[in-house]
Parts: sequence; structure tokens; C-alpha cells
Amino acid sequence: MGELGEFGLIALVNQGRTQTRSVLLGPGDDAAVIAAPEGRFVVTTDMLVQDRHFRTDWSSPHDIGRKAIAQNAADVVAMGAVPSAFVVGLGCPAETPVEFVRALADGMWAEAGRAGASIAGGDMVRSPMLIISVTAFGDPRRAPIKLSRSRAGDVVAVAGRLGWSGAGLAVLSAGADADEFADLVAAHQVPQPPYEAVLELPDTAEITALTDVSDGLLADLGHIAESSGVAIDLDSAALADPELEAAGKALGVNPLDWILGGGEDHAFAATFADSGDLPEGWVRVGRVLAGSGVTVDGTHRTGLGGWESFA
Amino acid sequence: MGELGEFGLIALVNQGRTQTRSVLLGPGDDAAVIAAPEGRFVVTTDMLVQDRHFRTDWSSPHDIGRKAIAQNAADVVAMGAVPSAFVVGLGCPAETPVEFVRALADGMWAEAGRAGASIAGGDMVRSPMLIISVTAFGDPRRAPIKLSRSRAGDVVAVAGRLGWSGAGLAVLSAGADADEFADLVAAHQVPQPPYEAVLELPDTAEITALTDVSDGLLADLGHIAESSGVAIDLDSAALADPELEAAGKALGVNPLDWILGGGEDHAFAATFADSGDLPEGWVRVGRVLAGSGVTVDGTHRTGLGGWESFA
Repeated sequence: MGELGEFGLIALVNQGRTQTRSVLLGPGDDAAVIAAPEGRFVVTTDMLVQDRHFRTDWSSPHDIGRKAIAQNAADVVAMGAVPSAFVVGLGCPAETPVEFVRALADGMWAEAGRAGASIAGGDMVRSPMLIISVTAFGDPRRAPIKLSRSRAGDVVAVAGRLGWSGAGLAVLSAGADADEFADLVAAHQVPQPPYEAVLELPDTAEITALTDVSDGLLADLGHIAESSGVAIDLDSAALADPELEAAGKALGVNPLDWILGGGEDHAFAATFADSGDLPEGWVRVGRVLAGSGVTVDGTHRTGLGGWESFA
Repeated sequence: MGELGEFGLIALVNQGRTQTRSVLLGPGDDAAVIAAPEGRFVVTTDMLVQDRHFRTDWSSPHDIGRKAIAQNAADVVAMGAVPSAFVVGLGCPAETPVEFVRALADGMWAEAGRAGASIAGGDMVRSPMLIISVTAFGDPRRAPIKLSRSRAGDVVAVAGRLGWSGAGLAVLSAGADADEFADLVAAHQVPQPPYEAVLELPDTAEITALTDVSDGLLADLGHIAESSGVAIDLDSAALADPELEAAGKALGVNPLDWILGGGEDHAFAATFADSGDLPEGWVRVGRVLAGSGVTVDGTHRTGLGGWESFA
């Protein structure tokens, strides 16, 4: 990669790409220019560090690129905003194969496209290991859906898979047969946030709080409970997922642990006013009560603190 | 730092901060919300890697924080935009002292304030060395000033110091007496982009191209020349800086090499239509010609390629 140099690499990763309409000025100047038709934009950023957030022996560069974009797009969507663009800082060793960088960029563009957006610019630097820093933008076409508006009496619901990424990570970590649990491993390699469950919410949906599940369901619902000043009780029967049973048996893990504590699925968790049917894609898994904290079947669970960056 | 944990650290670096009015929703939710009153925003991102872009034995954490923000703010201003907010991804080893992180954040906030903005959010993760990824936003209150509108006959001008950062780096690298050249070392530790020279340009100023000097004057003017399809000739007498003479003598370096090839000063370089006096803060240093490439006193200089990330 050293041979191509920074400007050659920038040309390489941008070759043949088509920006979406939100990108008014793309790579090549001191800064990019992004449309913000609502007069404001949402922004979120995540840093991924090799061997901490991904491993190149467990994930292809294409998968790593998709994951980096997906987890940021999920945060944008978790505000009720529509992804408009991404910028990417990439640090990598000089000896990184050019093909690796190209596949990483391809994965990023693929997931950006899934989210309806493109990659408007970035920075490439040399570093001792791979570092990926993604910043994502979105148009808040409705009032931002915050963590803090949940009320006692609301319904707790989730959209998307829970525990699959955690189960896939457990399979890889245990050196178990990755082929036998290929779907779970794939879910760990590339999360599939169900963007449409939020972006296609009908205007009539009385959603009161929303987050993406990145640190684990208990931890992320804990943020809603704390911000809103409420308690949340989950129904374990509603959360159970038969697809996790076989892996649980093989590894001696209660699948509910993955569902409640595993992060990185980037499903969405929300609370809705209790006014009948939930919107499409959402499953009822609990209720909001007066008080504080998150319980399961009325009981506090311990030992499932969720992801902690400096643990 | 491991003791505080991610959420404790986030609380620590945000403690006592006051967001500017552009930040409609700050840290604490899935994403921040930033005002974009012009219906669009400019964005730029830079990644800084320990021992590649800064050294903790040469710069204080406060200096490192200021530099990380300054170089991004300079890119925003180099589009003719007014900085509105920053987000910061920070990777650091678990054993990093909490005081280091606090001083780094203080430096970031200090420089963000100098640029008229605040830090709206970020991400903190564990990494083997310090990694700082800053993304900066700005309001384009005028049409973005691109690299591509320079025309033969224009005047080339600079605002701010050139070569000081390069000279300061040379002093540190050579192990020369840092106290004797304290101003140069300080310029390397903390660039001081003259934001006001751009932000207070009168409406009548016919600026045709603008960039910040991050890679070296020849390299950065080369981007203007290439984007605009013009040649640029610099006047070495107009560039000479008596403040660099003593360090040049002590280290056996022609100070013009620092001025032409040293990056990281984050001065601004621009071309203006030749219509009389330059705006305040700008010094004429050359002219735009038909052709291609950048010359000094009519001659091509070699060996001053500028900063190259993968060299």
C-alpha cells in the first residue's frame, strides 16, 4: 500500500463510486458539503480498533467495512433520522494489501447503499493496526426520537434479531464448528439493522423512545429507563428465539444470556404508547412501569452488564 | 482509566462544558443534532495516530487536543465555512491516566472555542495507542470556496505563518535547544490557523480558490493548480521569514525549505482576482499563470514533496 501513497489510495477507494443526491460536494477539496434540507442534521461517530472490535481472521475486509457502516447507520436511524452520508477515517499499516483496502471500501459502500446513502469523504493515515472511524449523518424528517420520553404504561418492543451476534461471537471464540452455526457467525460478522422498521414507521405510530441495541438489550434499555425515569420489565417468553437453542446447547450457554447481554446486533428497541397493534416489524417484549431499572419477568438479572469499552 | 469505564469517562470529559447554540442536542443519546441553517453543511475528518502525528514526550495532552481540533477547523474554514461543531473519536490504552484524558479534552474545548464552536459528541474506545479522530462541521454562509476556480492573472496570497511548524519539528527531531527556539516548537505543538483572515473576508473580496496549508505550501498550492488547471509561480523574497533564520543556521537548513515543504502550520493559501489591495491579514506571495505546476521564482523545486501519509 505504501507504493500507491495516500492520494493513489484515495483515488482507488473512490474509483467508480456514485454519490447520492445528499452529497453536494464529494471527495477532493478541503471538506465535503452535505445537504441538510431540514435545517439540522443528526451525527454519530464510532471507532473500531483491530482485535478489539473485529478480527481479520474472523471477518473478511468486506464484512468489516459493512459492520463499521451498519453500526453507525443504526445510530442515525435510532434517532428517527434517514441516513444521508458517511465520512470515514482509516488508519492502516503501510504493508496492508491494496486489495484489502479495496474490499473494505466495497463493504462500506455496500452497506451505505443499503442505508440509502454514500461515503462523502475521509482520511487515510498510517497506523500500527487497522483503525476505522466512521461518522454518519442523517436527516431528521421528524422530531428526533430520544431516549427520554418513555412513560409508565408504554409497550416495550424490538425490531430485528437479538443475541445472534453474541452467539456467533461465542461460536468463534470457543473454536466451535463455524459451519454448523453459519447463520449466527454471519450475524456477528455483519449485523443487519432493520432500518426499514424505523424509517417506515407510520406517522400515527406513537413511539416514545428508541435506541439501537449495541451494548446488549438490558444495557441499552437501561439507558432508556434512566433517561426517561421509568422502569422496564421484559417478558422472557416473548424474547426466546428457537434459532439460538442448538448453539446454546452446544456451548452450554442459556440463549437468553445472548439475547439480554449480547451487543452488536444493532436491532432496535423502543417504547410505544399502548394504543393497540404495533407497527410492522415490531414485536412486543415487555412493558414500561413506574420506578427504575430493567427486570426480566419481574426479577433483576446480574452478570449481564453489556459491552463496556474499558472493561 | 479502566476504573472509570466508558460512561464515567464520557461524563468526565463533558463535565462543566457549555455547548454553543449550533448544538441542538449534545451527548447522551444515540446521536447528536446540529443546526444547519443554510440547508447544508461542510464536513471534514482527520485521524491522528500517536507517534505518527504527535508524540506525548514532545507535546502536552492539552496541546495535542488543540492541534487535533485546529487542523480540522482549518479545513472547514478553508471552504469559507464557519465552524459549527465537532465530534471526536478517541482510542486510548486502558492505563491512560484520567488526567491525561481530561487535559486532552480541555485542549479540544479550548481550540473549539477559539473557532467559535463546541464538541457535540464522540466515542471512546480502548486501543493499543492513542488515536484521535476528529470530524468537524461548518455552516457555509457563502458559496463554498473550492480549489478549482483559480484563473491565470490571479494573485496568490497567504494568511498566517509558514514554516514555523516544520522548523519546530526540526528543532525537536535534532534534539536542539527547544528553549532557544521556543516559539517555533510551540508553533509545531499547537498550530494557530488565522481563522479570522477567512471568516472576516469582506463580501467584495474576489477570492477564487482557498486551501489550508497542511501538507506543505508547494503541495497544497499544487492541489489548487491541478484542480483549477493553472500554473502558480511563487516569489521567494515575499515568502522569506526572518524569524526562521536563526533556526536555519543552527540546523544547517535553508528556511525556505520549511516554508515551501513544511506542513502542519494550517495557514491559509488562496488566489484572488487581481483587483488592487488584498484583504486584511493576507500577503501577496505569487501569481497564477497559464500552464500547470508550481514554481518558485520561475523554477521547479524538487525534493519538497510535502507530507505523504504512507511514505
